[in-house]
Amino acid sequence: MCTDDVLIPVRLAVRRFLAARAESDFDVAVSGGADSLALAEAAAHEGHKLGLRVRALVVDHGLQDGSAEVAETAADTARRLGVDEAEVLTVDVSGPGGVEAAARRARYAALSGKGRDLVLLGHTRDDQAETVLLGLGRGSGPRSIAGMKPFDPPWGRPLLDVPRSATRAACAALGVEPWEDPFNTDPRFTRVRLRTEVLPLLEDVLSGGVAAALARTATQLREDHETLDALAAQLCGEGETLEVGALEPVPPALRRRVLRRWLIERGACDLSDAQLRSVDALIGEWRGQGGVWLPGSLVVTRTRGRLSMNRREEAKGE
Amino acid sequence: MCTDDVLIPVRLAVRRFLAARAESDFDVAVSGGADSLALAEAAAHEGHKLGLRVRALVVDHGLQDGSAEVAETAADTARRLGVDEAEVLTVDVSGPGGVEAAARRARYAALSGKGRDLVLLGHTRDDQAETVLLGLGRGSGPRSIAGMKPFDPPWGRPLLDVPRSATRAACAALGVEPWEDPFNTDPRFTRVRLRTEVLPLLEDVLSGGVAAALARTATQLREDHETLDALAAQLCGEGETLEVGALEPVPPALRRRVLRRWLIERGACDLSDAQLRSVDALIGEWRGQGGVWLPGSLVVTRTRGRLSMNRREEAKGE
Repeated sequence: MCTDDVLIPVRLAVRRFLAARAESDFDVAVSGGADSLALAEAAAHEGHKLGLRVRALVVDHGLQDGSAEVAETAADTARRLGVDEAEVLTVDVSGPGGVEAAARRARYAALSGKGRDLVLLGHTRDDQAETVLLGLGRGSGPRSIAGMKPFDPPWGRPLLDVPRSATRAACAALGVEPWEDPFNTDPRFTRVRLRTEVLPLLEDVLSGGVAAALARTATQLREDHETLDALAAQLCGEGETLEVGALEPVPPALRRRVLRRWLIERGACDLSDAQLRSVDALIGEWRGQGGVWLPGSLVVTRTRGRLSMNRREEAKGE
Repeated sequence: MCTDDVLIPVRLAVRRFLAARAESDFDVAVSGGADSLALAEAAAHEGHKLGLRVRALVVDHGLQDGSAEVAETAADTARRLGVDEAEVLTVDVSGPGGVEAAARRARYAALSGKGRDLVLLGHTRDDQAETVLLGLGRGSGPRSIAGMKPFDPPWGRPLLDVPRSATRAACAALGVEPWEDPFNTDPRFTRVRLRTEVLPLLEDVLSGGVAAALARTATQLREDHETLDALAAQLCGEGETLEVGALEPVPPALRRRVLRRWLIERGACDLSDAQLRSVDALIGEWRGQGGVWLPGSLVVTRTRGRLSMNRREEAKGE
């Protein structure tokens, strides 16, 4: 196979993505790993065909010795692969949560802080499969297993259907040596064990195609999930109270989404599934019961065929 | 813990299930394994409290030497655990597909053939987790990972939230020795490897709670899926043609469900996702394109703001 053939899967994915969404000069996030280097090359190649300028952004988290050199090398390689400019952003990793979460927060803030409408990220089909498995393990519902979105402005992920093997092959063909992040093989990280132990075993047991199947499932679940959210938004309306009569004929799974949205817009937070079902019972299993208490001294009551939410003080004052 | 305490999880699950659905005498499928024996005991205990008679049905697939004795022993044990009667059904396992699929078909036909409105099955939370993983590996979408339904008449699965460990503990407390099906440890079966290799590894990597998380996710996905199907049924209507104007404002994931339903009701089958998206393009990306061909010489066309489906001959005759 000649060099260009090996580059086709990544370039084609980027071309399709840009055709639908790129309207002006855009950025591409580069770590120096195979995924983001292959992405940078394809972004420059396809972006230039559209007459757009492409800038590579390299984040230096300062978490490892020599991280500044790794970042400079990544920026140099991206320039060599055709991007118009490359910039290193130094960030301060701190704040609540583990190091992984803090690094992610700092990285996304720095990348979006450059102000462009579109920042491409190199997540591949294998990353998507790991995300779906992580979400499954959490069991927190459709939201968590629907995986990463292809387009969530300013973030664009053109490679979610491209296997990691394609980005490695592209780097080999381009003659660049990708940086291997030592975090990516550290078994203290759950994601690393999913990648190196669980997914290969699942591939073996289920006779292959697991990463593709997980990514496909994520796409369909995300579409379902977004559809239900859109329908819930239509039903929710803007009023301070909700009319019970309008919600009675709505299927319960959609009705709970409407209620969730309505409660959150009015200041409720940390809603459990059980609490949501109790509020829903004010509609679906009404037998004159009292108000439902929610975190933050909030109470939802049904009066004269409408639901309303009040703070405890107001409720007491009645 | 006294004997009765150990029986509580299974009995409670059966009590809740029967309270909502049992209206007359019912059956319980018994294999002789721990799950179905614990289920039979709880079914008899709770069924009798409701004044209902409970019959155990044991299917002898005739696939292993001594299967007749295993079946008779299971029937005896079920009687000893309190069911009013127990019957062995001998079936002939044959037909297309593997032995697993053929045995399943024969078993379900025999069990439903006894004509009662409700037949309880002993699937546990662990079985549900395996089913979800199998579906994920297939990647055939929300339908396949939504898992088994708690109630799909005549089938009732009261134990889908009960761990397998609870049925084993119940059998130990009841002093019965469950039969261990050799198929359940044969690594040639995908499901066995999921149970004995993949799920324990996932439990380790994700720090526990995986089976519960998978079962919970399955419940939520099934509710979402059923909600979208119900909404699609409302939008589909009964007419021979579909009005494009009514479907244009509908979110695409719901619209494809409406189209899928409408096409299948009119005789289409083996629809791929790509074909469905082509039909949907007649609504969402209309630029005067020709008809969309589907398997079985069917063609869908848009004329004067309506979609219609015809067989090739009719289409030619126009």
